[in-house]
Amino acid sequence: MPVVDASQLRELCSRLLEGVGVNLSEANFAATALVASNLRGVDSHGVALMRYYLEQLECGDMEPQGDPELLHNSGCTALVDGHNALGQIVARFCCDRAISLAMDHGCGIVSARHSNHFGAAAYWVQRLNAAGFIGIVLCNASPAVAPWQGKDTTTVAANKIFNAYSAGKPEVPAGWALNSDGVPTTDTVEAYKGLLNPLGGYKGSGLAVMVEMLCGVLSGGAMSNELGGIRFRGAPVDVSQFYLALDPKCFLDPGEYEARAVKMTQKLKEVQPASGYDEVLVAGEPELRSEAKRRKEGIPLADDTWHSLSEWANKLNVPLPL
Amino acid sequence: MPVVDASQLRELCSRLLEGVGVNLSEANFAATALVASNLRGVDSHGVALMRYYLEQLECGDMEPQGDPELLHNSGCTALVDGHNALGQIVARFCCDRAISLAMDHGCGIVSARHSNHFGAAAYWVQRLNAAGFIGIVLCNASPAVAPWQGKDTTTVAANKIFNAYSAGKPEVPAGWALNSDGVPTTDTVEAYKGLLNPLGGYKGSGLAVMVEMLCGVLSGGAMSNELGGIRFRGAPVDVSQFYLALDPKCFLDPGEYEARAVKMTQKLKEVQPASGYDEVLVAGEPELRSEAKRRKEGIPLADDTWHSLSEWANKLNVPLPL
Repeated sequence: MPVVDASQLRELCSRLLEGVGVNLSEANFAATALVASNLRGVDSHGVALMRYYLEQLECGDMEPQGDPELLHNSGCTALVDGHNALGQIVARFCCDRAISLAMDHGCGIVSARHSNHFGAAAYWVQRLNAAGFIGIVLCNASPAVAPWQGKDTTTVAANKIFNAYSAGKPEVPAGWALNSDGVPTTDTVEAYKGLLNPLGGYKGSGLAVMVEMLCGVLSGGAMSNELGGIRFRGAPVDVSQFYLALDPKCFLDPGEYEARAVKMTQKLKEVQPASGYDEVLVAGEPELRSEAKRRKEGIPLADDTWHSLSEWANKLNVPLPL
Repeated sequence: MPVVDASQLRELCSRLLEGVGVNLSEANFAATALVASNLRGVDSHGVALMRYYLEQLECGDMEPQGDPELLHNSGCTALVDGHNALGQIVARFCCDRAISLAMDHGCGIVSARHSNHFGAAAYWVQRLNAAGFIGIVLCNASPAVAPWQGKDTTTVAANKIFNAYSAGKPEVPAGWALNSDGVPTTDTVEAYKGLLNPLGGYKGSGLAVMVEMLCGVLSGGAMSNELGGIRFRGAPVDVSQFYLALDPKCFLDPGEYEARAVKMTQKLKEVQPASGYDEVLVAGEPELRSEAKRRKEGIPLADDTWHSLSEWANKLNVPLPL
């Protein structure tokens, strides 16, 4: 398993994106966002996505020079047309607009249509957090989750099942997937051919629909089975996204929300672990630990990810770091 | 099982609330909200709650004359102190404020502290919907959900386990509960003594923490194990709530969002049912069917619910409809 330094990996991805027509500054930005996900240990949403992005950009399913546009602005809300640009470029535009609206109104809500895969949603929430805001970021996705009691169209991101499949692992954990008859399965091949199981049964199915209502329905973009997919050529993915930035200083004194959030986290950490576990983890904690480790030791890449990056580097005459 | 007409049940509950010191108009409002939940078939969040509300109001854990107060207002946000009033009275105040903020800014966000149990959250979302807004309503709750990998403080509302327990049902469905060692159980007694299992594993646990961050942490109220509970006397429950109203007309033409939402719902209904099911249901559909039926045929009440309402009616000299 090749191990690559984060800065070398960013440089490689940036050059590859440039090689298919993306401007240098946008290419750098998107590469940084992807590598951030690998640093955090979320490899399903890191540079493993490059092969799809490059294919989409090369064949015209995604627009290398796409430029997001503010369609209109009303009160604390804004509607953005992503014009089929890289999802990371649309997301940056939307986050920055949500931040500026929240500065004026206490809250900013931005809806984007005609966008693309933007990597890990966490990266955009972190961008809102860094500006001092509570962030909520949602996106719809290619139809892959069965509605409760249905068998068409998630406990886990689809890429995790795809990764298990492409790595030849025979089983995925219980609760991840349904087979093509809508029946739960742990067989990786069946899961890959089947569908994702909504997290939390009917409640999860309801949450998935809520996300679709706030994304595809509200943005005026593609919804549900109208979307394409990053693994399918011939059409834009046409994803919609929803960004909310909320200023905690509208409710509490400056710094008080953050101090209370730390206190809340400590309460969780103090909980007695269940039988078989050493500690209670809070959201982001495994990712922070991974980031500390991978910044020091480099990022291990799955062989097939490295292989496809190498092929693209060869094709586009970009030097490889290893 | 006694069956009571909705209007008779409202009248009974309203008089009982009046009997422990609530003003008539507030009593009517709270009774209407509770009975609405029974009509929709959500008996866990209907008049079964009356026994707790009455105890709380009688012993001073809840304030019969409590009057919610707007603490401050900034941009599209507002902070409300519920002053320990009935949760339904606080919720009405907050919904109406969120609506008026959304009319001015496109979105309104209201955070309430020192509130109480407000019945079914759906009722408040419906109030926001009726005014033309997309609604999101959240509340924190007594510590009852184990964090992932922890064994102290949900796939289901705690009341559903309590109802199974008080009805003497030996088993609850898999996935609802953990025993007191933090291990999954379907034994009703173990579940009752144990904890709720977060819906969707670690993702559900993360969602529960998100709700707590937006409720108890952001409102400046009680958080996690600082809350009381409707079944425990000697302290207010001290719940916090979060209300968001969003105007779809900021994004799309008037009526377009609603038309697109209907189209999205049709897409879900057209999905082929999984093996063993006749149809795909969308959120609210079972509740609408129940409401049509119960408006016509009356509301069947569990014996213990009817028994406790009868006892309170007797104590407070309120006539019973049956």
